[in-house]
Amino acid sequence: MTSTLLPPLHPLATGLTADSPLIAALEGREPAHRPIWFMRQAGRSLPEYRAARVDSTMLDACFTPELAAEITLQPVRRYGVDAGIFYSDIVVPLRAAGVDVDIAPGIGPVFGKAVTSLADVEQLPDLGEEGDGGAYDSALEPIRRAVGLTVAELGGTPLIGFAGAPFTLAAYMVEGKPSRDHLAARELMYKDPDAWEALVDWTAALAGRFMRAQVLAGASAVQLFDSWAGALSERDYQEHCAGGSARALGAVADLGVPRIHFATSAGHLLPALAQAGATAVGIDYRTPLDQAAGILPDVALQGNINPALLAAPADVLEAHVQDVLTRGAVAHGHVANLGHGMPPHADPEVVTRVVEYVHEHG
Amino acid sequence: MTSTLLPPLHPLATGLTADSPLIAALEGREPAHRPIWFMRQAGRSLPEYRAARVDSTMLDACFTPELAAEITLQPVRRYGVDAGIFYSDIVVPLRAAGVDVDIAPGIGPVFGKAVTSLADVEQLPDLGEEGDGGAYDSALEPIRRAVGLTVAELGGTPLIGFAGAPFTLAAYMVEGKPSRDHLAARELMYKDPDAWEALVDWTAALAGRFMRAQVLAGASAVQLFDSWAGALSERDYQEHCAGGSARALGAVADLGVPRIHFATSAGHLLPALAQAGATAVGIDYRTPLDQAAGILPDVALQGNINPALLAAPADVLEAHVQDVLTRGAVAHGHVANLGHGMPPHADPEVVTRVVEYVHEHG
Repeated sequence: MTSTLLPPLHPLATGLTADSPLIAALEGREPAHRPIWFMRQAGRSLPEYRAARVDSTMLDACFTPELAAEITLQPVRRYGVDAGIFYSDIVVPLRAAGVDVDIAPGIGPVFGKAVTSLADVEQLPDLGEEGDGGAYDSALEPIRRAVGLTVAELGGTPLIGFAGAPFTLAAYMVEGKPSRDHLAARELMYKDPDAWEALVDWTAALAGRFMRAQVLAGASAVQLFDSWAGALSERDYQEHCAGGSARALGAVADLGVPRIHFATSAGHLLPALAQAGATAVGIDYRTPLDQAAGILPDVALQGNINPALLAAPADVLEAHVQDVLTRGAVAHGHVANLGHGMPPHADPEVVTRVVEYVHEHG
Repeated sequence: MTSTLLPPLHPLATGLTADSPLIAALEGREPAHRPIWFMRQAGRSLPEYRAARVDSTMLDACFTPELAAEITLQPVRRYGVDAGIFYSDIVVPLRAAGVDVDIAPGIGPVFGKAVTSLADVEQLPDLGEEGDGGAYDSALEPIRRAVGLTVAELGGTPLIGFAGAPFTLAAYMVEGKPSRDHLAARELMYKDPDAWEALVDWTAALAGRFMRAQVLAGASAVQLFDSWAGALSERDYQEHCAGGSARALGAVADLGVPRIHFATSAGHLLPALAQAGATAVGIDYRTPLDQAAGILPDVALQGNINPALLAAPADVLEAHVQDVLTRGAVAHGHVANLGHGMPPHADPEVVTRVVEYVHEHG
């Protein structure tokens, strides 16, 4: 089953995670139980995470293989969730490529220089090619090592690789910092479509290579996370962004892994998210899963417990989780998750009860 | 036509603005031409606004009748738009009621104290009753005077009164400051529904009285602006917020004025927005107007030029405006507008051309 023409076989192909509930559900097969994991499960809501991070910045932790692996594993150990999500941040591949970006505490990504013209795009670092030993390829080595350490521990539990989508990366770069409405990026699409297209080409290659490195190192699935795509009209998205996401997801298509595509506040973009080459679509808490399944009958769905309900009385939360399970049951495949990231102040005891409930009743 | 049992007759009833293009379109009648105005037309994009505001904070300007009237009139003079929108801010009624709130430049509303419990709600200022000469009623006097000065200048051009919706006001108060996801407010709905309901009751009364004061002083229509409702699932909105908006809009229903209800990123809430007692629904730039008209065949629609396109080449912008006019023509009534607020850096020359195009081709 090996070939000198193909990359090293993926764990999925080796069977280690192929029949896990996560992969079965993502492929539309019957899982042993309803799988569940949580976006941002590795992070601030866990006391063991806060302890592990105490001496390092977030970006330093992302580039320290032992620490990134440990943080990725923490919620799998504590909660018994059905997948690890690789501990990273959407700016990690940018930093790896040599872009001047940092995460300012309480603010978010802040860039040394905003990208607002074709000349700016042309000055972005050359990404080279996979395995060329160039700057980007070499800078991804700690990521590969972290993934390797993680999957060795996870065994039959799949690891999900992660990247920010080309539009979201580009939106941050055009603004140079977080923005509420991403207007500068949305303007650039129309004001200077050549600059915009070149930027999305670059971020698509960056994100695709980043996901591919994680899969080649052992991740069994990927999630492309488009934080801000919901700010776009369907026309904006289809004409100026969908192609980039399709290229990023296409970078791992030959590796045969399930490809989850997620955007928040994007009920109007669901068909477009699927058409960009996803095999599963993440649904935020605003769109009921049965309604999403009606729109997307042929892909697996992921979601969509309302994170606000984690603060509700136990019976109210339980009724909501059951409602999500019931609605999700009509999908082509369903992976339970939150409909947005884990709140930093979420109570781990409550999260544990959600996992138990889903495994028992899902 | 006067009665001692009724409030002073509304300008609409007197006929001064009744046949204006705006009111005709909002009532589903045939307007003389397609009306247009812009959300945030009175504001930072105008050099005459920046000059007028140079010596005062935004909140001071809102409470200075001559200045608020002047700022409201500026875009009507410059652009020849079909309505004035009363220059205000969603925190103005909060400040009038005596809540400790300020607008921090570059940040937004910041409160002396967040409202997070029923006890906090019970400590909010008593709003009294309309015309009781109490603290809130008296503090609205500069608002009434500003409206009176404005409508005297506007003549047959209608003035639209304005208030922030109960949910958006409550969301700010629970967070105590701007928030990206309004999670604290969304949690409070489920964690302490009594506190939440009491808070929305209070903000609904506040917003309703604020709109009513503007209408009684001469405004011909109102817009209730729910900046953050799009962050809610339909269930969140229907169970915990829609009632408050209905009470706020209900406060002016007996005055016979058109009631526009607008929320951004709220394609999933359009039926709920209409059902809350609106006679027109504002559509943001993400939902095509013909699609919105299919969902809401019985109310007028307002919108939805994509603000990002104001930065596009003239021919691209013109094609987009024409597309909006064509799609809007199938609605029960159509008022052209942006699908979000005017960008602070919008070029007034470009805005002028949009108004001319709509008046010529609408």
